[in-house]
Amino acid sequence: MNYKMMGRFNALILTIEAVFMLPALVICIVCGDTAGINGFIAGIAAAVGIACILAVFSRNAKPDFFAKEGLICVGTSWILLSFVGALPFFFSKYIPNFIDALFEIVSGFTTTGASILIDVEAMSKGMLYWRSFSHWLGGMGVLVFLLAIVPVSGKSEGYTMHILRAESPGPDVGKLVPKMRQTALILYSVYIVLTVLDFLFLIAGGMPVFDAVCTSFGTAGTGGFGVKSDSMASYSSYIQTVTAVFMLLFGVNFSCYYLILLKRIKSVFKDEELRFYFGVVFVSVVLITINIYGIYETLGESLHHSFFQVSSIITTTGFVTADFVNWPVFSRTLLLVLMFIGACAGSTGGGMKCARVLLIIKTIKRNINQVLHPKKVQTIRINGKTVDEKIISNTNAYLAVYMVILILSVILISFDGFSIETNLSAVLSCFNNIGPGLDVVGPMSNFAGYSVLSKCVLIFDMLAGRLEIFPVLVLFNRHAWKRQG
Amino acid sequence: MNYKMMGRFNALILTIEAVFMLPALVICIVCGDTAGINGFIAGIAAAVGIACILAVFSRNAKPDFFAKEGLICVGTSWILLSFVGALPFFFSKYIPNFIDALFEIVSGFTTTGASILIDVEAMSKGMLYWRSFSHWLGGMGVLVFLLAIVPVSGKSEGYTMHILRAESPGPDVGKLVPKMRQTALILYSVYIVLTVLDFLFLIAGGMPVFDAVCTSFGTAGTGGFGVKSDSMASYSSYIQTVTAVFMLLFGVNFSCYYLILLKRIKSVFKDEELRFYFGVVFVSVVLITINIYGIYETLGESLHHSFFQVSSIITTTGFVTADFVNWPVFSRTLLLVLMFIGACAGSTGGGMKCARVLLIIKTIKRNINQVLHPKKVQTIRINGKTVDEKIISNTNAYLAVYMVILILSVILISFDGFSIETNLSAVLSCFNNIGPGLDVVGPMSNFAGYSVLSKCVLIFDMLAGRLEIFPVLVLFNRHAWKRQG
Repeated sequence: MNYKMMGRFNALILTIEAVFMLPALVICIVCGDTAGINGFIAGIAAAVGIACILAVFSRNAKPDFFAKEGLICVGTSWILLSFVGALPFFFSKYIPNFIDALFEIVSGFTTTGASILIDVEAMSKGMLYWRSFSHWLGGMGVLVFLLAIVPVSGKSEGYTMHILRAESPGPDVGKLVPKMRQTALILYSVYIVLTVLDFLFLIAGGMPVFDAVCTSFGTAGTGGFGVKSDSMASYSSYIQTVTAVFMLLFGVNFSCYYLILLKRIKSVFKDEELRFYFGVVFVSVVLITINIYGIYETLGESLHHSFFQVSSIITTTGFVTADFVNWPVFSRTLLLVLMFIGACAGSTGGGMKCARVLLIIKTIKRNINQVLHPKKVQTIRINGKTVDEKIISNTNAYLAVYMVILILSVILISFDGFSIETNLSAVLSCFNNIGPGLDVVGPMSNFAGYSVLSKCVLIFDMLAGRLEIFPVLVLFNRHAWKRQG
Repeated sequence: MNYKMMGRFNALILTIEAVFMLPALVICIVCGDTAGINGFIAGIAAAVGIACILAVFSRNAKPDFFAKEGLICVGTSWILLSFVGALPFFFSKYIPNFIDALFEIVSGFTTTGASILIDVEAMSKGMLYWRSFSHWLGGMGVLVFLLAIVPVSGKSEGYTMHILRAESPGPDVGKLVPKMRQTALILYSVYIVLTVLDFLFLIAGGMPVFDAVCTSFGTAGTGGFGVKSDSMASYSSYIQTVTAVFMLLFGVNFSCYYLILLKRIKSVFKDEELRFYFGVVFVSVVLITINIYGIYETLGESLHHSFFQVSSIITTTGFVTADFVNWPVFSRTLLLVLMFIGACAGSTGGGMKCARVLLIIKTIKRNINQVLHPKKVQTIRINGKTVDEKIISNTNAYLAVYMVILILSVILISFDGFSIETNLSAVLSCFNNIGPGLDVVGPMSNFAGYSVLSKCVLIFDMLAGRLEIFPVLVLFNRHAWKRQG
């Protein structure tokens, strides 16, 4: 374990966080929000303070950096980021309980969007900005941001790859271009352009500027924190539709956009994951529209709500326009399944990821064929390329560890006495970084009713879900912390 | 596809079924149950008739028999067995709806024990006997029975192995002795001895002979059909305890009993699956006892109900002494997890099987280590032996296909409008061959409320669960039915 290199990294991350707190501080100053000013000054002071200590400790760090270091770095930096990021809520006393503040900011950075706030409108603008901005930063990944802005020498190319791998979602992260820094830059450029486009479309629909900024942050990160307690329900149907479309777009693998820029449109259309993603969306929207037709007056209205909710749930954003807890069981079951599937790999969305689900389905098909023809060697192909057996085995192991964490979490939070449906959907919602669940934690409710223990379990689930489990699990492995090896 | 060999096999299976219907017919004659006599005569006539047609068709069959044939043979024979087995219920008009009759007998053969009967006591003794006997026959497997009694030449040794593999539960079926027929004989001998022991213990507790016969059949097959609507609730606590202990014993891998006979006690105690199984039982009993202490008057009573229910659920039997729907959420969640885990491989119990769960946990551990040390080759060992990578990959694929079937089933039955908890536990209960679920399909209720479509889905789940998915899935693969290859 290269502790010094890790210290240097974490110092940089905290410095970035301090810089990003400044706009929120400015908003508080403009609004004359004294409590908010105190909160952000405390947050910035803590970030800078810890960063300085780490920087001093990590002088003359050697750039030996392997997969293990990459994973642990990602795990620790997200935890540090969350603890410091919770301070503004806590010291401003907008969220006087520290575990609640931590829950809220972890929910922000992991782009979950689950809230313990009963009255969102009671928060000041500075706080709401910070909440929504955490989605934007967490969506593409703060370490990827670091890679994009910090120049690295050729020697460090290796470690940047390990970090990008660990922080980016999906079973197999490809480099877009040979240099990792360029890859990170391209990803962030596409991300910024799309966010700005979303913002402009919202403004065009007459949305107040502050609301539009926060909503586009929440959409881009597929987070789901809004500025109102009823989420998106009170906005015009134009704004809702814009948001639904952009949620879907942010759930697409960002390398597809890069291919579009390169005018390789054909290979985008042939992408199996993308087809699967839009196929699932299309089928779900149709089925749910038919199923909820009785509840709404017109077919158009059913379609509108169905499209918005499907888009919001499969991309794991979690914005809502309708209280789907009252929808029929079939629609609710389908939404639970969409929670599980999630968005495309390499997007800002969460869940198992379409690529993994596709791979698992193909593995099952292969296994049936293998039972019939035991001696035939059968490979799995995606987009015409043979998938490495190691990726297949890792994907299956991912499903296994996913299930184990899911089951353990549901057991641990069951002490609070909520129904099994509530608990299962709460864990699914946090673990897949969605936001709202069903029943007690449904779209019009929140997580405030859970005990401290349950909140800690859910915080773990959110982090594990965002970082795709292994960077977080590795932190619990004592071998990981050995100085050598 | 060797159709003639398949025909011969199915003819033999149906003949055995006809023979096994005779005792039930005798019971009907003794009781003067005219409807029952009609039912069983219809059943026997159908079985013998179809068997004759198949026998004529499959003259001069060549004994070419591969894994594919073994799988398909198991799949088709279980379906035939179920259709013919449902006839006595249907033609006696005790269950006038054929889908209901099929549900009931599939639930019997697959040792599920889920019932559509609202009033069990309204059935005649002959019917109750057939219901319970189907558990006993299905528990160890009717094809394994066939192997045990039909002498095979050395040349056919291959196909017997394929059949034993396909019908016996667990990730890796070992031969106990070099000859497959001997293995089948040993398994059935242990099975018969344990069943008789159970029967004697029940008789000793003053249970009526007929009840004791049916209860020991239900316990041996880990099925769960009783002769009373309230299952085991009205029997003495001695009888309940005997049943709980024997359920646990029938959930143990039968090769352990063989090792005990060989006086290799030490290797039994060292068996990792067995330790895991008893470990899970012990921890669950303790936790649930504490959790339900408030509901029952004494600690002893809590312990009694907790032990009975844990034993009944983890072995996927499904007998009940208490309506656990009223237990706290924590206990109910734990029971749901036990449903999922299931008994040991090579026992009569269902579920994922402890061996698979153990293997999955070890795979997860390995994957975490592999993330840390990507270049180190790491093997998984169980009972000191390295597990073949193919078995690991198959186990992970099994979990994947299990999840996919689970999710699709829950979606398909969600049209009936029951709660998600009801639907999920109904599917888990049928798929893992347990019997009762939670909520509407809880221990004191039944599956009568589901639609015909849902019942068909659940029938599929029961068969897929009992035969460990692949023999049933293969039937849907068109390549499987090709005459060559």
